[in-house]
Amino acid sequence: VRPLRGILPPVITPFDSDGALDLAAFEANLEAWAAEDLEGYVVLGSNGEAASLEEDEKLALVRAARARAGSRAVLVGTGLDSTRATVALTRRVADLGADAVLVLTPHYYKPQMTAEALRRHYLAVAEASPVPVYLYSMTLFTGVPWPPGLAADLASHPRIVGIKESSSDLGLLGRIITSVPARFEVACGSAPVLYPALCLGACAGVLAVANCAPGLASAVYRAFEAGDHARARKLQAALTPLAVAVTATYGIAGLKAAVDAAGLKGGQVRAPLMPLGAAAREDIRALLVAANESWRA
Amino acid sequence: VRPLRGILPPVITPFDSDGALDLAAFEANLEAWAAEDLEGYVVLGSNGEAASLEEDEKLALVRAARARAGSRAVLVGTGLDSTRATVALTRRVADLGADAVLVLTPHYYKPQMTAEALRRHYLAVAEASPVPVYLYSMTLFTGVPWPPGLAADLASHPRIVGIKESSSDLGLLGRIITSVPARFEVACGSAPVLYPALCLGACAGVLAVANCAPGLASAVYRAFEAGDHARARKLQAALTPLAVAVTATYGIAGLKAAVDAAGLKGGQVRAPLMPLGAAAREDIRALLVAANESWRA
Amino acid sequence: VRPLRGILPPVITPFDSDGALDLAAFEANLEAWAAEDLEGYVVLGSNGEAASLEEDEKLALVRAARARAGSRAVLVGTGLDSTRATVALTRRVADLGADAVLVLTPHYYKPQMTAEALRRHYLAVAEASPVPVYLYSMTLFTGVPWPPGLAADLASHPRIVGIKESSSDLGLLGRIITSVPARFEVACGSAPVLYPALCLGACAGVLAVANCAPGLASAVYRAFEAGDHARARKLQAALTPLAVAVTATYGIAGLKAAVDAAGLKGGQVRAPLMPLGAAAREDIRALLVAANESWRA
Amino acid sequence: VRPLRGILPPVITPFDSDGALDLAAFEANLEAWAAEDLEGYVVLGSNGEAASLEEDEKLALVRAARARAGSRAVLVGTGLDSTRATVALTRRVADLGADAVLVLTPHYYKPQMTAEALRRHYLAVAEASPVPVYLYSMTLFTGVPWPPGLAADLASHPRIVGIKESSSDLGLLGRIITSVPARFEVACGSAPVLYPALCLGACAGVLAVANCAPGLASAVYRAFEAGDHARARKLQAALTPLAVAVTATYGIAGLKAAVDAAGLKGGQVRAPLMPLGAAAREDIRALLVAANESWRA
Repeated sequence: VRPLRGILPPVITPFDSDGALDLAAFEANLEAWAAEDLEGYVVLGSNGEAASLEEDEKLALVRAARARAGSRAVLVGTGLDSTRATVALTRRVADLGADAVLVLTPHYYKPQMTAEALRRHYLAVAEASPVPVYLYSMTLFTGVPWPPGLAADLASHPRIVGIKESSSDLGLLGRIITSVPARFEVACGSAPVLYPALCLGACAGVLAVANCAPGLASAVYRAFEAGDHARARKLQAALTPLAVAVTATYGIAGLKAAVDAAGLKGGQVRAPLMPLGAAAREDIRALLVAANESWRA
Repeated sequence: VRPLRGILPPVITPFDSDGALDLAAFEANLEAWAAEDLEGYVVLGSNGEAASLEEDEKLALVRAARARAGSRAVLVGTGLDSTRATVALTRRVADLGADAVLVLTPHYYKPQMTAEALRRHYLAVAEASPVPVYLYSMTLFTGVPWPPGLAADLASHPRIVGIKESSSDLGLLGRIITSVPARFEVACGSAPVLYPALCLGACAGVLAVANCAPGLASAVYRAFEAGDHARARKLQAALTPLAVAVTATYGIAGLKAAVDAAGLKGGQVRAPLMPLGAAAREDIRALLVAANESWRA
Repeated sequence: VRPLRGILPPVITPFDSDGALDLAAFEANLEAWAAEDLEGYVVLGSNGEAASLEEDEKLALVRAARARAGSRAVLVGTGLDSTRATVALTRRVADLGADAVLVLTPHYYKPQMTAEALRRHYLAVAEASPVPVYLYSMTLFTGVPWPPGLAADLASHPRIVGIKESSSDLGLLGRIITSVPARFEVACGSAPVLYPALCLGACAGVLAVANCAPGLASAVYRAFEAGDHARARKLQAALTPLAVAVTATYGIAGLKAAVDAAGLKGGQVRAPLMPLGAAAREDIRALLVAANESWRA
Repeated sequence: VRPLRGILPPVITPFDSDGALDLAAFEANLEAWAAEDLEGYVVLGSNGEAASLEEDEKLALVRAARARAGSRAVLVGTGLDSTRATVALTRRVADLGADAVLVLTPHYYKPQMTAEALRRHYLAVAEASPVPVYLYSMTLFTGVPWPPGLAADLASHPRIVGIKESSSDLGLLGRIITSVPARFEVACGSAPVLYPALCLGACAGVLAVANCAPGLASAVYRAFEAGDHARARKLQAALTPLAVAVTATYGIAGLKAAVDAAGLKGGQVRAPLMPLGAAAREDIRALLVAANESWRA
């Protein structure tokens, strides 16, 4: 896989009204995104409701994404709570053509997830993986803080090529970036800090909001890349309210409502996530309109 | 299932040196426990490393437990991060003869796990379950606090019969007990507070330490039941140091070491949990000896 | 000071409508409490709004309490964020007749408040104090967890005589009790766990709710002391809802409203604490009536 | 006070070997800083050990800072746990010539410190203050999170002119910046995120590390101001390791050691903060040398 640059959505997983996987809707979204300025896709991420998917559903999603991604990168989330299960899923998705895997910190036995336990886990997965491995920290959902020195420790493994850090703590992101070799790719997983993260040296953004506003998200990246900081800051300010709404405020149900509002296929979330009310949907629709107006103005 | 009374171990899952499920060791443990004063078994709990088991392994463990439990209760942990997966597993284990299921709070999407989301989840599972349902809160691992009023809300469902609350916060346990009808069973999941939890009205203890010291754990219960508070307090004091060692201090690897020390089959943990060093094993062995001496004295 | 037994209210500090200290109201409360079954008083505790008092106000309160406490114990909260300030205040209140001091963990520089920093702080205070010292942990307000082994470390100092632990985590309380010598006094600071804490070996309760319901709080203690566990549990269940309301739910403004409802002098809180609305006051009044009815029934 | 631009150290408070305030050392530091590219000083901040100072010491420090600051801004930390005490101290330091006050969130009664309680507190202080008021959030020490919408609510008061936000969560900082009017000044209080905070629109940095490395901290600011992003990022990377050492790793004792190493007067911390060992002092000295070399290179 070539080094990541630019924006990747962690793609949502559409379900039909019975809660079954809606693969056709998933494929329709990929076709719509093909026209956007995106670097690739993350399949089976947190926003893809991976925690609520069965293994056969996961494999079907990877196949579909690979078939429609063309030359774009397909990164696949394979982190599970046991090392052996993570290895097994990593091998399966590599067989299906995943370009790389994104391995969430195991997290159920939180007090035992020391830096050393995580280090061994990642080395075991990297040893067994046929494809490059990205580390993945999402403390809001896992409750496991990322040890500041761990990325530098792991960067010496030839198959561990980068990290997606999803908090908005740029103190942590900065410490990671200054501790790793230049080849190690650091992706920002929090849209409200995309622009300042790029300033610190992040190379890419894996952003929920890129499901519903890929153009605006990419525009922030392109403005930064062009050295137009004034524009990058302005676009970031336009992106932030929508990004907060589809993550912190309304969660994945909000993100799916925004995808619907953008004319793609969002649909329902799987329980225990709850459906969104009409007022929330309208709020999200208005935020999407406002974000797009700011950008195109 | 008759109302729970007394002590149930959340049984450990032995693995062989390759990390494969060791069903023979599991069965040997059940045979050893048959001679102890235990009420039943919890299979696929947190201490059973359920988070690291595949579904076929889970079903094999339930079958084995059911076959060897005799008239004792077999409760099975079936809580997963999606409602539909929880329902599916619940039905499967009920088919295999589980007396009841123990449903952990879903927890990956923590900020969305409001009291209302949990309420809907539990009602959906209870509606679909062929067997009685116990609520199960384990905040240390899930990061999801138990809403104080939720048990009372759910107690009106005829198949929701109790809760296992696993923190040592007896303020929470007391609020639950005083809010639910008398028929609703409240089990204590934290051995260091077993005796005071019984004083507050808990009816049972589901205790990791009962894997390695079932006699002492049951003795606390029996002393309380007999109204011998002085003895209950003394036995509790003997139990606490070992209980802390096999949970907070050394985790499941420590619990398995204690099971080994007790002459049963503990064995290895699955990665990313880490193996225990020799000093820790010796510490645990000494604590087990001391606990047993206190009790038999 | 003789060993603590029974119930002590951490007495509230009345203010007049301008927010000035109302010493006459404070004295009137002490006179009313004189008729109750109380062991003594804690002055300048968290519920006394010590964090919002000037030093001259603190000294006036200690003088007034000492003058009206008769033979009852007067414990005074003197913990401040610096060791030297804590020592200075400790000496001043000892000069005014405090029987002992209660020293809250320093807490502003949280990450630096290691077990060793706390140990040195307490030893320095104890060395300089003319009167016995009680350790005081109130993690909800300080954000500093109590190190489980610290009480045992400090118990060897002849002037460190006990601890007030104010969480409802009886796992922690039990670990403290089993680690200290018998002479070391452990007081429970959380009313909803008073009865089970006594079962574990606590000797006293320092309870906010004893400001407004001293009779019921003492009745729990007396029932336990008499070995009447059934009655103790029943009274505890009557106490808990009121105790939760005047602490977790409504805070000190709620406690003062309950004191008003009990016919004593509660009055206003100092800002930034906020006054209570009419509905909350009514809720509290009803809870007080219900608690008293349960008890006298 | 003119709008803040550039870098201000929250100045340390030197103590002599008996723990008494060393005003001469404080004045010597101010004289040394006079030659640096600094905007002004924050006196009585968290790094000034304000929590461990008596009021007469506080006033002496303000007088000394005012006398030696020349035309530079002197901002004074006056936040205390009660509104009335905060108002009183604010008035006193305004009389002594403070240009503005910096008001920390009150925090002892954490669960009661709702957005509404904080709003009333700040409005009451601003109404009574003779000088402009800066809001001040330092969640690491207070345990009180800053409500994202509160700054915008308060910005309509003519005397509330800005905020110092001291976490490294630039998601929060960005939400504040995009919600307030342009005149409202947002200062970054976390050196490891200075450069990205400036990119987002922060106007100033109030940085502990500016006590010991004012030149490097200012150089980051100047590079950003000049539009030299490559240099700003490089200087930020040089600043971060030292900044982490004198805050997160070693605390104020580390900061004072770095001030000593820089040839100024750091000295001891007040207990319960602990003195630093020789190895830590050497680590800090080496980090200071490395930081300065990076910068001057």
